Amino acid sequence: MIPRGRLKYLRSLRLRKNREREGLFVAEGLNVIEDAVRSGHAKELLLVEEAEGLPRVKELVARGIPAHRLEPKDVGQLAETRTPSGVFALVKDPCRPLAGARLPAQALVLVAAGVRDPGNLGTLIRTAAALGAAAVLVTAGTVEPLNGKVVRATAGALFRIPVLLGETAGLREAGFTLYVADAGGEPVSSWRARPARLALAVGNEPRGIDAGVRALAAGAVGIPLEAGVESLNVAVAAGILLHAIRALPVVPA
Amino acid sequence: MIPRGRLKYLRSLRLRKNREREGLFVAEGLNVIEDAVRSGHAKELLLVEEAEGLPRVKELVARGIPAHRLEPKDVGQLAETRTPSGVFALVKDPCRPLAGARLPAQALVLVAAGVRDPGNLGTLIRTAAALGAAAVLVTAGTVEPLNGKVVRATAGALFRIPVLLGETAGLREAGFTLYVADAGGEPVSSWRARPARLALAVGNEPRGIDAGVRALAAGAVGIPLEAGVESLNVAVAAGILLHAIRALPVVPA
Repeated sequence: MIPRGRLKYLRSLRLRKNREREGLFVAEGLNVIEDAVRSGHAKELLLVEEAEGLPRVKELVARGIPAHRLEPKDVGQLAETRTPSGVFALVKDPCRPLAGARLPAQALVLVAAGVRDPGNLGTLIRTAAALGAAAVLVTAGTVEPLNGKVVRATAGALFRIPVLLGETAGLREAGFTLYVADAGGEPVSSWRARPARLALAVGNEPRGIDAGVRALAAGAVGIPLEAGVESLNVAVAAGILLHAIRALPVVPA
Repeated sequence: MIPRGRLKYLRSLRLRKNREREGLFVAEGLNVIEDAVRSGHAKELLLVEEAEGLPRVKELVARGIPAHRLEPKDVGQLAETRTPSGVFALVKDPCRPLAGARLPAQALVLVAAGVRDPGNLGTLIRTAAALGAAAVLVTAGTVEPLNGKVVRATAGALFRIPVLLGETAGLREAGFTLYVADAGGEPVSSWRARPARLALAVGNEPRGIDAGVRALAAGAVGIPLEAGVESLNVAVAAGILLHAIRALPVVPA
């Protein structure tokens, strides 16, 4: 059984400032937790009694992650979802600062520049991981990647792709060519090649990309839309652009 | 001022069975309401006093839509969002049955076959409208399109693209070739042309497409993903497929 003081500590991680101080957060749901365990980020499991018998849970316990029993009445102390699974984990923050991160010589990096909606940021991270981006850069103006809604929307991708914290200017300094995604930009279908190190920035819906980020960009790239339609969802737009750019040859240096 | 009985009636439309009986629902938020007004679906505006002065609201009132004042204490009776704008409208259901719907000879139709998440269905409708699909077919196993979360996620697209209710078999009967979206399907990048009438079905996350729908399909089409990544968000996948298919020439009949 989990000691009361421990439960209080875990509960304190619902606040961002505590997550940042401790470098830890509580993840919820088996899919995300399995990825946290596989990537070596899970420190401790918290389980209701019925969950202990699940084969997928047994496999996690067999990997040597310490497990504590959670009383059903305490689930609400940790859960953020309406239908909690009764499976939680204390997890190390996988995000790293951009400064000092090593990125491949050939890399496509997605920049979340001012994305405020947690579901959108999570889906962006999931999309970038699925479509072979080298990393996702999360700027200070973007929602915190350890927000519970973000983590759930990544569907585990938070532990499968490097999530870097920093500003777009830092990528420029690392030799990346920056393009901003914009419905009015050059159609991506007109691109024939891509720079070896390319950063693609997406912004806030519906405000778009900050002027400061735009000023750093080599140009804007977009997806032609039907007349009268203002924009695509930011994660849908990023998916279309990453899929199209990924298929292009790299410009020789 | 809105009579109490009227408020009770509007509130009753929070239940699906009442929406279906009346063919009406209450929409929330200025963007969606503007599209409802433009398309001739809005019957009545409900506004808090402060909203009456907004230029965008004045424009709607000037179009002759009757407006009623809502007391701040009654906003919670109609609002589903945490930060309601104080602008609501009584709106006619724009969805129509597939049977009897006229579709162009050349048409790409997106089929939501068993999509359970309201945000995903709304984003699918928004994506289909932005990328030039002729219609969205919503099957019985999919979440109701008038669900408040769906309507908000469409960002007004519910009024800009025909949303049809029916089953996939009905499209087959209308001469559509059906493909199902599946990560393991033929890569869309290998397609060189598309049938004049093409229906693309997306399904439930993570269960995928029902066997009954699969059995009707000419094949499966997908997006190659990085190793270890199970799937894309359904709206992101649909966006990538629609964008790629839209650019293809039509196979001569």
